Amino acid sequence: MTNKINEEELNTKLVTDEEPVVPRSHSEKEQMLNRLKRIEGQVRGLQKMIEDDRYCVDVLVQISAVNAALDKVGYSMMERHAKMCVTESVKQGNGEEYMDELMKVIRQFTK
Amino acid sequence: MTNKINEEELNTKLVTDEEPVVPRSHSEKEQMLNRLKRIEGQVRGLQKMIEDDRYCVDVLVQISAVNAALDKVGYSMMERHAKMCVTESVKQGNGEEYMDELMKVIRQFTK
Amino acid sequence: MTNKINEEELNTKLVTDEEPVVPRSHSEKEQMLNRLKRIEGQVRGLQKMIEDDRYCVDVLVQISAVNAALDKVGYSMMERHAKMCVTESVKQGNGEEYMDELMKVIRQFTK
Amino acid sequence: MTNKINEEELNTKLVTDEEPVVPRSHSEKEQMLNRLKRIEGQVRGLQKMIEDDRYCVDVLVQISAVNAALDKVGYSMMERHAKMCVTESVKQGNGEEYMDELMKVIRQFTK
Repeated sequence: MTNKINEEELNTKLVTDEEPVVPRSHSEKEQMLNRLKRIEGQVRGLQKMIEDDRYCVDVLVQISAVNAALDKVGYSMMERHAKMCVTESVKQGNGEEYMDELMKVIRQFTK
Repeated sequence: MTNKINEEELNTKLVTDEEPVVPRSHSEKEQMLNRLKRIEGQVRGLQKMIEDDRYCVDVLVQISAVNAALDKVGYSMMERHAKMCVTESVKQGNGEEYMDELMKVIRQFTK
Repeated sequence: MTNKINEEELNTKLVTDEEPVVPRSHSEKEQMLNRLKRIEGQVRGLQKMIEDDRYCVDVLVQISAVNAALDKVGYSMMERHAKMCVTESVKQGNGEEYMDELMKVIRQFTK
Repeated sequence: MTNKINEEELNTKLVTDEEPVVPRSHSEKEQMLNRLKRIEGQVRGLQKMIEDDRYCVDVLVQISAVNAALDKVGYSMMERHAKMCVTESVKQGNGEEYMDELMKVIRQFTK
């Protein structure tokens, strides 16, 4: 489902709608899930701040912190994708479309 | 609690640890809470994508979308704070510290 | 001339096409000009790097440095504008349009 | 010279202090130089705006425009580096250090 939405966002067809080229290990998945659960908790914390009528600047700094945590997850996924999936694809001879897609998602991610 | 953490993040004492200078209306709070609940749902969606071994670029575009949604909440809170709280403080004669703090949080928010 | 272009960029009519509300002092102008001259020199340095066939990553880090220097000039102009011109306008009773414009230019500047 | 400075900025030794892995063609260099000369002109335009006491927001939008132009040069250099130099290095079997460096410069460029 998100696949369709994300292709629209990125304005390109994703190279694959399957799994990562190099599968994520169990511990990689655990670590990523833990970080995302912590971020979910932070977003609930933001809701509590609104309910408690907290001062605007206090809320804003907290929003920055969540953004920074999400960015960190994103960058580490991007690096892993580049160093494993894209590199593997180049070795297998179909790297061009993966490298192209990587550059597109980097522009999307950093705009 | 976050107040202390956020003062450290911003490297300055917040002007107030109380409520917004101009209180948020019931409907303002509702709207903000709804947006944050939608973001919480998006973060849970990201966890599902990891559990389902979804393709890296697919996940990355989705992370961008969450970041954009959070930015939007942040910018609208920043604007409301500037146009209401900071403006009111300037009129009451103690605007300097509020304007100063606004500029600091903008740098923090946009770095 | 740029005025017209910039109103299009910002998608709004500028509050004034005249001078700053609170005029820049001689030393403020000197300081700003010095920083911009240094940036001009950095841009010429980038041209030299291309002529000398310098390694891509070397050039990229240098581009980041110029961007950071420009950002710094921008942020200090933004702060000065907020603390002087916008604050003064609020005191004079026509702060609304200035605060509104400030928020617009911040979004433009930080996107 | 900048090489040393840039290694410090990036907090890593550059993979090479020589030329691009895949040399830039004459027309690639021409195009890059033209864009950088236009940017140099824009920076001189900013100096003129300060000398002419132009309105702060007018100057700020112009600074954004220069930043956007520089970003564009940076992104196109980054893409060319990824698709040519990094891809070539992966094929030659020493891609790891190039991919690693690419990710580092992307973080530096987008922070």
